[in-house]
Amino acid sequence: MENFSSVCLRLKSNKISILDQRKIPQEEVWLEVTTAAKMHKIIKRLSVRGAPLIGVCASLMIGVLALEKTNSLEQLKEWSEYLKTSRPTAVNLFTCLDRMLVIMKTNEEKMDETNVKGLLVKEAEAILKEEVEMCERMGEHGAKLIESGDNILTYCNTGGLATPGVGTALGVIIKAHQSGKKIHVYACETRPLLQGGRLTAWELAKNKIPFTLICDNMAASLMRKGKIDKVFLGADRIATNGDFANKIGTYSVAIAAKLHNVPMYSVAPVSTIDFECESGDQIEIEQREPKEVRGVRDYIWAPDCNCYNPAFDVTPIETVSGIVLDVGVFTTKEIQSGALKKLKK
Amino acid sequence: MENFSSVCLRLKSNKISILDQRKIPQEEVWLEVTTAAKMHKIIKRLSVRGAPLIGVCASLMIGVLALEKTNSLEQLKEWSEYLKTSRPTAVNLFTCLDRMLVIMKTNEEKMDETNVKGLLVKEAEAILKEEVEMCERMGEHGAKLIESGDNILTYCNTGGLATPGVGTALGVIIKAHQSGKKIHVYACETRPLLQGGRLTAWELAKNKIPFTLICDNMAASLMRKGKIDKVFLGADRIATNGDFANKIGTYSVAIAAKLHNVPMYSVAPVSTIDFECESGDQIEIEQREPKEVRGVRDYIWAPDCNCYNPAFDVTPIETVSGIVLDVGVFTTKEIQSGALKKLKK
Repeated sequence: MENFSSVCLRLKSNKISILDQRKIPQEEVWLEVTTAAKMHKIIKRLSVRGAPLIGVCASLMIGVLALEKTNSLEQLKEWSEYLKTSRPTAVNLFTCLDRMLVIMKTNEEKMDETNVKGLLVKEAEAILKEEVEMCERMGEHGAKLIESGDNILTYCNTGGLATPGVGTALGVIIKAHQSGKKIHVYACETRPLLQGGRLTAWELAKNKIPFTLICDNMAASLMRKGKIDKVFLGADRIATNGDFANKIGTYSVAIAAKLHNVPMYSVAPVSTIDFECESGDQIEIEQREPKEVRGVRDYIWAPDCNCYNPAFDVTPIETVSGIVLDVGVFTTKEIQSGALKKLKK
Repeated sequence: MENFSSVCLRLKSNKISILDQRKIPQEEVWLEVTTAAKMHKIIKRLSVRGAPLIGVCASLMIGVLALEKTNSLEQLKEWSEYLKTSRPTAVNLFTCLDRMLVIMKTNEEKMDETNVKGLLVKEAEAILKEEVEMCERMGEHGAKLIESGDNILTYCNTGGLATPGVGTALGVIIKAHQSGKKIHVYACETRPLLQGGRLTAWELAKNKIPFTLICDNMAASLMRKGKIDKVFLGADRIATNGDFANKIGTYSVAIAAKLHNVPMYSVAPVSTIDFECESGDQIEIEQREPKEVRGVRDYIWAPDCNCYNPAFDVTPIETVSGIVLDVGVFTTKEIQSGALKKLKK
């Protein structure tokens, strides 16, 4: 398998290493991942996260396992199904693993196992390459929406720690900055797991982009004061009507942006569209452990109480201005006229 | 001075003890406060907080200091002015201390010092008693708005840890529960200082009221799902047009409630109305240290970055359904017709 290196993912001599995101920014620890069980575990516990990235990592895992002579196609199919159970909401995980499964199912009867395994490796490499390229294209399309002087609000983490490339929403911001536009970012900390405060702050600092960290509950009042010009954030699953699931709290930002006439865009690759899902109501939302809400790391401030902890919420398409995809920017009006459905291959 | 005991404030043999709220719920540590400097410090660092409570504590401090023979009226005036500088937004602090200053200024020429000091002690006792009674009345007026079966969202802490009585918004909730109404509360954790997660959760548990702790960013999506029937929260300063400052994030909850037709009330005593302030734009908002946003307690997840950390935001009166005062419930329409201005004594 071809060597590869990004902010958080390395492939070297057919070994996958992943930057443990639970430890950022305090420590930069790389985990070598050699089994499907380990990959399942680190996706589930969020050592690796981000809708596009977990799809890539899971399919790379199958690709790497296909290189082992002793692993049968039956075993690889089982592992593919197993990896799909690591998290329920981001569709990329299913889309990518289904591509691997399709390779096996359509070829196992007409080819010998070694050749099918060769195709699996190629498919995993293709998925990785496509996702990196989609990041580049999202970045280019989205950056055109940004003007010098803009104050941009972003949510959760959608950069090089959420994708194998420059990112989705944060990729757009990074591209705008790299093109010389003078921008300032407000990064929402994103409770309970603080992907904004820990990961986006880390990435923005690495990219030397001026930013201010805020608590999630400060976004609406900043908009009321006219301090936010645009909002860019990601998506974990997009229904064909344009409704999208994204990190819990996205809906709160969206209604504030709408009320204050702040343009807001979700940025995602086409691989995030679930063509089987017609509306946001059909998206399964992952419920996570109460301890994440009760505290942070070792500091628990509300022991033993009942908590509600959905990892995502659904934002209806009419609440936002549009969606930036790798194939271009789609306005809400275009999406409401069925533009996303037409992208199905 | 008459002995007194509440959830967080004790007066015994002319000594003030205050429950250190920074340590709740892990530890219940009582601080004996014997000087104006100590009172200033513990108000500033939030060992004691809540708009009504800090006004009471500051004036009790002056009352206790007036009992010392060696403290002159000049010194007591200086301390009163000094205590006003401990925090800038809650108007109760100024209102209460101004009452103490008025006693001194109007009587010092016609009475001897001992008699003026006697009046100071009485005034401090009166302020305390009035605030406790106002809590009772707010609780009674507000509880009428709650029906059995209601799911009530609350924000920050507004109970026996924010007032010398049963509370403002949380007092309403406690009164409704005590009257036998079956209610369930969603408590927002209230970043950055987690007054909801630490203090309201602690009070709700003590009062055996069923509740669920949520992150602030989950409120809007719960409303979209129809899970919230009413919102009750406090106020730190109310302008005569009804706009009110309250804990940062209140505005975000307010616009979500408005959009989803969830009735929302601010609950506060008349002492929270600033009759000199005509509109929310005139309210000074306290900016606090960035480290509160960068982390929690000893766990810092975003070292050294730029942060925005206003302690409060302003919610325009048209965003909410009304205000519950100790003198009754006022609808937004009544307030817009000038109802609050008429309450000035």
